Amino acid sequence: MVKQEKLVEEITSRDVDFSKWYTDIVKKAKLMDYSSVKGCMIIRPYGFAIWENIQKFLDKTFKYLGHENVAMPLLIPESLLQKEKDHIKGFAPEVAWITECGSEKLPERLCIRPTSETLFCSHYSQIIESYRDLPKLYNQWCSVVRWEKTSRPFLRSVEIFWQEGHTVHETAQEAVEETKKMLDVYVNFFKNQLLIPVISGEKSEKEKFSGAKNTYTVEALMYDGKALQSATSHYFSDNFSKAFNITFRDRKNKISYPFGTSWGLATRVIGAVIMVHGDDNGLVLPPDISPIQVIIIPITLKNDFVIKKTYEIFGILSLNFRVKLDDSKRSPGWKFSEYEMKGVPIRLELGPKDIEKNQCVLVRRDNQKKVFVSIENLKKSVLNTLNDIKKNMYETANNRLRSRTYEATDLQNFLDLSKNKQGFIKAMWCGDVACENKLKELALVSLRCIPFNQERISENCVCCKKKAESMVYFGKSY
Amino acid sequence: MVKQEKLVEEITSRDVDFSKWYTDIVKKAKLMDYSSVKGCMIIRPYGFAIWENIQKFLDKTFKYLGHENVAMPLLIPESLLQKEKDHIKGFAPEVAWITECGSEKLPERLCIRPTSETLFCSHYSQIIESYRDLPKLYNQWCSVVRWEKTSRPFLRSVEIFWQEGHTVHETAQEAVEETKKMLDVYVNFFKNQLLIPVISGEKSEKEKFSGAKNTYTVEALMYDGKALQSATSHYFSDNFSKAFNITFRDRKNKISYPFGTSWGLATRVIGAVIMVHGDDNGLVLPPDISPIQVIIIPITLKNDFVIKKTYEIFGILSLNFRVKLDDSKRSPGWKFSEYEMKGVPIRLELGPKDIEKNQCVLVRRDNQKKVFVSIENLKKSVLNTLNDIKKNMYETANNRLRSRTYEATDLQNFLDLSKNKQGFIKAMWCGDVACENKLKELALVSLRCIPFNQERISENCVCCKKKAESMVYFGKSY
Repeated sequence: MVKQEKLVEEITSRDVDFSKWYTDIVKKAKLMDYSSVKGCMIIRPYGFAIWENIQKFLDKTFKYLGHENVAMPLLIPESLLQKEKDHIKGFAPEVAWITECGSEKLPERLCIRPTSETLFCSHYSQIIESYRDLPKLYNQWCSVVRWEKTSRPFLRSVEIFWQEGHTVHETAQEAVEETKKMLDVYVNFFKNQLLIPVISGEKSEKEKFSGAKNTYTVEALMYDGKALQSATSHYFSDNFSKAFNITFRDRKNKISYPFGTSWGLATRVIGAVIMVHGDDNGLVLPPDISPIQVIIIPITLKNDFVIKKTYEIFGILSLNFRVKLDDSKRSPGWKFSEYEMKGVPIRLELGPKDIEKNQCVLVRRDNQKKVFVSIENLKKSVLNTLNDIKKNMYETANNRLRSRTYEATDLQNFLDLSKNKQGFIKAMWCGDVACENKLKELALVSLRCIPFNQERISENCVCCKKKAESMVYFGKSY
Repeated sequence: MVKQEKLVEEITSRDVDFSKWYTDIVKKAKLMDYSSVKGCMIIRPYGFAIWENIQKFLDKTFKYLGHENVAMPLLIPESLLQKEKDHIKGFAPEVAWITECGSEKLPERLCIRPTSETLFCSHYSQIIESYRDLPKLYNQWCSVVRWEKTSRPFLRSVEIFWQEGHTVHETAQEAVEETKKMLDVYVNFFKNQLLIPVISGEKSEKEKFSGAKNTYTVEALMYDGKALQSATSHYFSDNFSKAFNITFRDRKNKISYPFGTSWGLATRVIGAVIMVHGDDNGLVLPPDISPIQVIIIPITLKNDFVIKKTYEIFGILSLNFRVKLDDSKRSPGWKFSEYEMKGVPIRLELGPKDIEKNQCVLVRRDNQKKVFVSIENLKKSVLNTLNDIKKNMYETANNRLRSRTYEATDLQNFLDLSKNKQGFIKAMWCGDVACENKLKELALVSLRCIPFNQERISENCVCCKKKAESMVYFGKSY
């Protein structure tokens, strides 16, 4: 394919410098900007519109499954954060402390929530009395603060925009089911809306959430072969209930501790979308979350009939799709590049000759293919094309995931793969953290997860050769 | 009317102790709860669902008018907050300061945003270059923190949930128009959705926002006769542009400063809804923001035909309204009280005899009136009743506002009214802050606003008797 003339400022090629390519995209597609506080980002209108589409879909799903939204405070007293010991150990090094208000010193330090388990649990201890009050299925959309030394737009930042679900249940079984159900919600959202294939499974003891009994994760593979932890769901057993004295009178009239979960997904997924689907012309957005699904561009502004027709088409398509008509004075070529950079799935071009033939040019963002489509059946053509785009984007990403997943059978093989290949490495593991640490040190990879879909590659741990417990995924992480 | 038997725990009567009545309602209707940080509240599911309905409506209106949502950081460096002098003077006494992160001391203190003018302006100075970049019409939904000594649920708290719009424009005229347009959005929202009549006008120099040239306000009258500032819109002229060096190349190719506005509305309006419409049986919610518009209650659970019919009606009404069917094992009487407490506009009761007659009982929350309605035309009856409720709620509130607005013609009259009457006092004012201060000291009232609708009560200031400049509203404030 002949490369299209670039009228919008060039971006670095993703094969030349992936990291620079990523930064170019987030800036030039105007997704975000840096703020005056190191590590805190500004989400600009186009980036936030993507997030709003993500929110809309997930919020609807959460509510359909019986969850209710609430707003917990932003601040946590130090004594409250300390109640669950593993939890505070995990978060203490990275919380932001408020020590003064106005000109007064506070009697007790308050931190900005790094996550809200302590707040939800403290509230639950107040409002739960009987099994009739269970389950409590709460969620909130908010931001949290973790003092990260390094930051990258959407992937790692001091302030993180996310949703956090927090639930409590009568029985352990019900809580485990909730943990896995919500992980499934994420897996399906990645597959069907973000068009990103994922590996789902359990985190190792070393990698799990501070205070959790089990952490489940959704792991995605980026274009450069690195892994991104994209959503997590935690089962707490009764750890937090005991620490926060949440009790309820059960069906046998006995005082019991309920079982808890939490699960979250952050704007980090926007980073995943960029790094899985983007190309050297910019963003490529999944239709379901793209703020603009169809961009209509008149080829000339001097022909009244063309202008009239574009407005007509805009009116028709707007009923079913998110459509923008760009009739600004910029050149068509500039507009083509601009909306490619912004990742708009479909471009419709209309010129005088097209209209004579009652047709327009439909260009797909995912594979750059151009076709002439009849204006009569435009609504149907757009719908079908969006579905084809979804299918193609998912398949492309899935093929990459498959072709970049390697199997290591012994340590040397593991080290060779980690050195020479970019992708996931599947290997058998004994379950010992010593082997996990050794592989991290020697191969610079971390254990991504123990997948639900187990395979038997061999009988022995890839590292220590002792009897293997499970097959696991390793990868270089973001 | 004979008072209905109360099966839900009693609340204090609003005529006996309004303040206690208010606290009872917010707790017993489960709108909020107190948190472990003094002054920070938890918004519970029912309260948050009201807020979500408010958000949905306003967000749609903002977007329709061309505004875009963004997310600015939570934190402001001290040096940035200090850039506009009046602004920092107003907010310094009440900001929360972060001085430590993890175990490190920060080189510069950061505050949690008390409002975000400084953040938006700092961003605007980066992204605006030419008149072609204007106007910028941004909004964000978030929370802000102001260290208030005293707090009341929804009305005054350390953490405030709100929306804040921040715009910049090419000309002063355009910015003034935006300021007033957005105030009108609020006025109409109060009138048509919250069913609260308001006085709109300009704040005095003493009462305006720190850093603003003009502040416009929406003032509502609560049941107890006190005034509540319910939304504000500020015109900044080029104050912030100059302080933050926001410049643009204008149409004559000259470097100019743009003109700014900001406008906001907080969960405080939920407090207004409670205090304007609520009664001794609990909340009375305006249909447009009520999480449940119709509650369906079967009179018996032992009759399969009744149960089947309630499900059928639930299915039909759900397509057009927010409906809940309560078929739990509680008694019908308990349910009646519960949904009255929650302020649900319409209750539908279904018993075996009703169904035989193909009818059900429709009970209005606003005036407790019961009517029998045919099941055939139920959808239409519900729609008409909701409209009647809206009309009646607004009229009741409007009659109260009118009957509790007094005119003071001289100082003695003013002092008598402020002592003996609860409501707004209209009076002429010379425009001098000395008179404003004197009236505040003597009568314990503050100047609410200089209304757009001016009347000529007399020629002289009610306080100093010098020539009056305008007619103003005074009131006791929340």
